[in-house]
Amino acid sequence: MALKVVEAANAGLYGKWLTGKRVALSAQHGIDGVWAEYAITQANLCLPVRKALSDEQAATIIVNPCISVCLVERAIALGSKTIVINAGASQVGKGGRYYAKLKGIKAIATVRSAANVEVLQALGADCELLTSDDSFDHSLKHWAKKIKAKVLLDSVAADDTSRVLNAMPNSSTALVYGRLTETQDVLSGLFSVADVIFRDMRIEGFWLAKYIGDASPLQVLALSSKVQKLFAQGIFKTDIYARVSFDDFAQALDHYAEHKSDGKVILLPNS
Amino acid sequence: MALKVVEAANAGLYGKWLTGKRVALSAQHGIDGVWAEYAITQANLCLPVRKALSDEQAATIIVNPCISVCLVERAIALGSKTIVINAGASQVGKGGRYYAKLKGIKAIATVRSAANVEVLQALGADCELLTSDDSFDHSLKHWAKKIKAKVLLDSVAADDTSRVLNAMPNSSTALVYGRLTETQDVLSGLFSVADVIFRDMRIEGFWLAKYIGDASPLQVLALSSKVQKLFAQGIFKTDIYARVSFDDFAQALDHYAEHKSDGKVILLPNS
Repeated sequence: MALKVVEAANAGLYGKWLTGKRVALSAQHGIDGVWAEYAITQANLCLPVRKALSDEQAATIIVNPCISVCLVERAIALGSKTIVINAGASQVGKGGRYYAKLKGIKAIATVRSAANVEVLQALGADCELLTSDDSFDHSLKHWAKKIKAKVLLDSVAADDTSRVLNAMPNSSTALVYGRLTETQDVLSGLFSVADVIFRDMRIEGFWLAKYIGDASPLQVLALSSKVQKLFAQGIFKTDIYARVSFDDFAQALDHYAEHKSDGKVILLPNS
Repeated sequence: MALKVVEAANAGLYGKWLTGKRVALSAQHGIDGVWAEYAITQANLCLPVRKALSDEQAATIIVNPCISVCLVERAIALGSKTIVINAGASQVGKGGRYYAKLKGIKAIATVRSAANVEVLQALGADCELLTSDDSFDHSLKHWAKKIKAKVLLDSVAADDTSRVLNAMPNSSTALVYGRLTETQDVLSGLFSVADVIFRDMRIEGFWLAKYIGDASPLQVLALSSKVQKLFAQGIFKTDIYARVSFDDFAQALDHYAEHKSDGKVILLPNS
């Protein structure tokens, strides 16, 4: 994702309207290059941003904040009034937490480090559970039943999808949108055949690029405007850990890989 | 599943109407005993059977034939005009094949033994693939793309769900209703996280007991009547391998476990 100004467009009236506007953009599927001075991408992948939003925050609105909104809206469409957010201290997890609260949706957040329990408590999560606690499965089952959490936002996958689903009420759905667990087999996710058959558990995925690709420009604008309103209201905010030039990028990326929940690294080509 | 005559019922008008009727029945969840002379079960789990149906065929209408119909109807509801039937020579697989044909739905059937390729060819399957062929994955991909097979009926699970889904077009759904693969972990199913996220693959289960439990008596009667019409028309037929008394049951069960596609074993308590 990047932030640029539209120089020229070959996309009808919508393209004309976009021209001259500051936009957050992402690369076309399979084609990279948005870090270059000029880049070409689809009109649908350019989200015009409001003046009130800083360049840095604007550069982050595609991807995580949009994913948070889409996931919570999918949970609402699935009829759930409560969600479980696996890896709740991630940017998408926190965003999901904020947006869920705004929509009156309760949330159980799981975290993998004790420090993040406090971070989520400060955000006012309904319940935070540390996955390494001995009582984790038991507590999750207790809470998921108590507040009827029937949708799981899962960015961990591997064993976690079946482990967390197993603790949730019948007819729950996992929305898998990432695989933070480092496994040998990059493709492997596990599900409990018994839970899928006898407890009506379902697994589906979410990929923002597909969502935006399938959406009309109007739907994309609506999503973008919703996300920016949340930034303007101070409800959404992307944590930024560092701002670096190309020279220090490798080092900053290494830090990010090890400490993802510290926040994003912003690349400033001209600094 | 068993065949009995309703002696008495405590289920309102519907129960009164059932009394005296010959019914195929299954046991209540967690409560066994339908092989006894008298058994108690829910009214919803008793399907009145037509006179034209023999006792033996009638005893088999619950479970497999109903599952075949429900799975194909779920595929139709999901908007697919073509299905992949994994383990296509099973009773549910064959039933699904017959019913799909009736509904104008094309089918790719996979089989695990060469002998069953011929069995399915004789049934007029659109395409039969032997899972042990070197070209299996390639052929499956070719055929699934060609005839746009977007729903998988999967009774094998374990590695098969991800293997077969991987060969199918984007946005396909696996309906998992069994786990024929004998694995160490009875719960384990595998899915490709990448396919679920980036190719919009979904996994859901099907369990007849839940379907019937959630359905109204009218919906159950409609399903039962549909299945029996198919038996009457000679479209459905349960293959019966043996009829045995309690004395020879253990031996017959061992044979069944090893040769499931030979057909069902009917237990005749009074023979």
